[in-house]
Amino acid sequence: MKETRVLTGITTTGTPHLGNYAGAIKPAIEASRDLNNKSFYFLADLHALIKNQNPSEVHRSSLEVAATWLALGLDTDNSYFYRQSDIPEIPELTWILSCLTAKGLMNRAHAYKAAVAENIDQKANDPDKGITMGLFSYPVLMAADILMFKADIVPVGKDQIQHLEMARDIAMRFNHIYREIFTLPQAQTDENAAVLKGLDGRKMSKSYNNTIPLFVPEKKLKKLINKITTNSQPPEEPKETKDCTLFEIYSAFAAKDQIKDIEKRYSEGIGWGEMKSILFELLNDHLKDARKDYEYLIENPSIVEETLKKGALKAREEAVPMLEKIKDAVGLKSLV
Amino acid sequence: MKETRVLTGITTTGTPHLGNYAGAIKPAIEASRDLNNKSFYFLADLHALIKNQNPSEVHRSSLEVAATWLALGLDTDNSYFYRQSDIPEIPELTWILSCLTAKGLMNRAHAYKAAVAENIDQKANDPDKGITMGLFSYPVLMAADILMFKADIVPVGKDQIQHLEMARDIAMRFNHIYREIFTLPQAQTDENAAVLKGLDGRKMSKSYNNTIPLFVPEKKLKKLINKITTNSQPPEEPKETKDCTLFEIYSAFAAKDQIKDIEKRYSEGIGWGEMKSILFELLNDHLKDARKDYEYLIENPSIVEETLKKGALKAREEAVPMLEKIKDAVGLKSLV
Repeated sequence: MKETRVLTGITTTGTPHLGNYAGAIKPAIEASRDLNNKSFYFLADLHALIKNQNPSEVHRSSLEVAATWLALGLDTDNSYFYRQSDIPEIPELTWILSCLTAKGLMNRAHAYKAAVAENIDQKANDPDKGITMGLFSYPVLMAADILMFKADIVPVGKDQIQHLEMARDIAMRFNHIYREIFTLPQAQTDENAAVLKGLDGRKMSKSYNNTIPLFVPEKKLKKLINKITTNSQPPEEPKETKDCTLFEIYSAFAAKDQIKDIEKRYSEGIGWGEMKSILFELLNDHLKDARKDYEYLIENPSIVEETLKKGALKAREEAVPMLEKIKDAVGLKSLV
Repeated sequence: MKETRVLTGITTTGTPHLGNYAGAIKPAIEASRDLNNKSFYFLADLHALIKNQNPSEVHRSSLEVAATWLALGLDTDNSYFYRQSDIPEIPELTWILSCLTAKGLMNRAHAYKAAVAENIDQKANDPDKGITMGLFSYPVLMAADILMFKADIVPVGKDQIQHLEMARDIAMRFNHIYREIFTLPQAQTDENAAVLKGLDGRKMSKSYNNTIPLFVPEKKLKKLINKITTNSQPPEEPKETKDCTLFEIYSAFAAKDQIKDIEKRYSEGIGWGEMKSILFELLNDHLKDARKDYEYLIENPSIVEETLKKGALKAREEAVPMLEKIKDAVGLKSLV
């Protein structure tokens, strides 16, 4: 039976938070242990340059994100874990794909269209104001990320489905013009993926500045949990679990019987203060070992660097012969 | 005194013809022997993919173009001669530059605007019809070609001046956002560059199908010269050198005193048949040794391949540390 190739791109902007963990990191790390999969995980640091022109932030963020995934138990023996910028074959393929990607396809990309719409809203002179070629051609780089490793499955959020369709489109075009080299990737969206609310009750997101970072020190974690907005019901009153941020976060990490117990406590009227303590204990138990590992890795970046370098070597064992095949197909090959 | 870095991109579409030789190749090859210059010559095979999706043509053309320059005496000891696709650092830099290149800049590129205008003329549904991302983002790749090697001077035709300005623009933006890494290149156009007419009296150009390929066999060269259009003046009648295709081609290759002699013969009324014989002799003398070398190289592509591989090694001695510096500046560097 052919193993399934699963590829996951990891954005390296910002510090990972609880919402990232519950929604994406946890399921992805579980998948890294699946022996039926050949899993690829990469730090999308070339993509990071589109949004972030602060070199120390770009650099720091790569370290934090890599340390996070390693501390949370990514199985790097059973998977490929690498930094996109360590694989020169990816930008090489990006150019080759550019030469057969219709500009019209990029014109229709949601992220680009949203940026143009915002410019028009704000009555900018140029609808392309502030839009870089990086933002505009991002889906071509993403296609190269995916097609290089012949990914069958790419787990993505709904906002990324269109990019996957573009990658398929580009792959089909290449296979048609030259020869059948690329696998057509499938998007995989997880309908049951946890979406956590943040401190203010809106979706937990860096852009709302309402996140609980994964690996803050114990004291800080306690403090942040205490800041989560609740309603003004007094302790004794029975409470709804529905739409309750505390309950939702709790459920994302607790076992089934723990969840049942807490539902009972809600109906009996648990006080918000007590619920916050219970949530803190659960999260802290869940994270404390990983936090220790994380802190160790941040203090010892050479361990992370070595792991990434090893991962790049492993990934290039795939990328180098694949690119050679691709270059051969388009006519870029030895004259002999 | 700091040496001047001169960079020349060589298109690898089609077989080089007399017009290419007189206008561009001859002066460039002379420059390769100038000890005050550090000259870079590269086969722009990544650019070739924009226009040509026939792999065997792309491949064949690289061989023919490289063999042409070598046969004509390019000094590869005193210069860098490489194939663009052998330098992975170039597409890597292209992506990095994309992230700070305004899309609006590309919207204004002449080649793109011309393609859009043609679509509009032809009442296409989509003004971007048939336009690829390769065509659209071509000036970013060209900026990477130039900036990677810190070129001071880039000899170009007038149609390329805008692209040079874009490369300067992108370099300035990088130097401003990150740090002063890039040299600002200057376009160098040669007002006196020979522009030859083709068989039909229009400018010699592949697109008019009126060229005299550089290295056709002697018989074929004779035949092609005989096909050059002339007016219907009889042999005895005095003739004008002005706008005479035969005279123009002759002047591009003859010595000053030879030109004077021929001017005299024109005024005395030289027959077109005789002039064609004289032109054939001149060109054949000029090209026959190089033709022999060219044919030898075409029969022995491994010599060309080895020269290009050596050139790539030499070029990468510049490109690898340069890209490292650039990646460091944007935050893509070792975590240690």
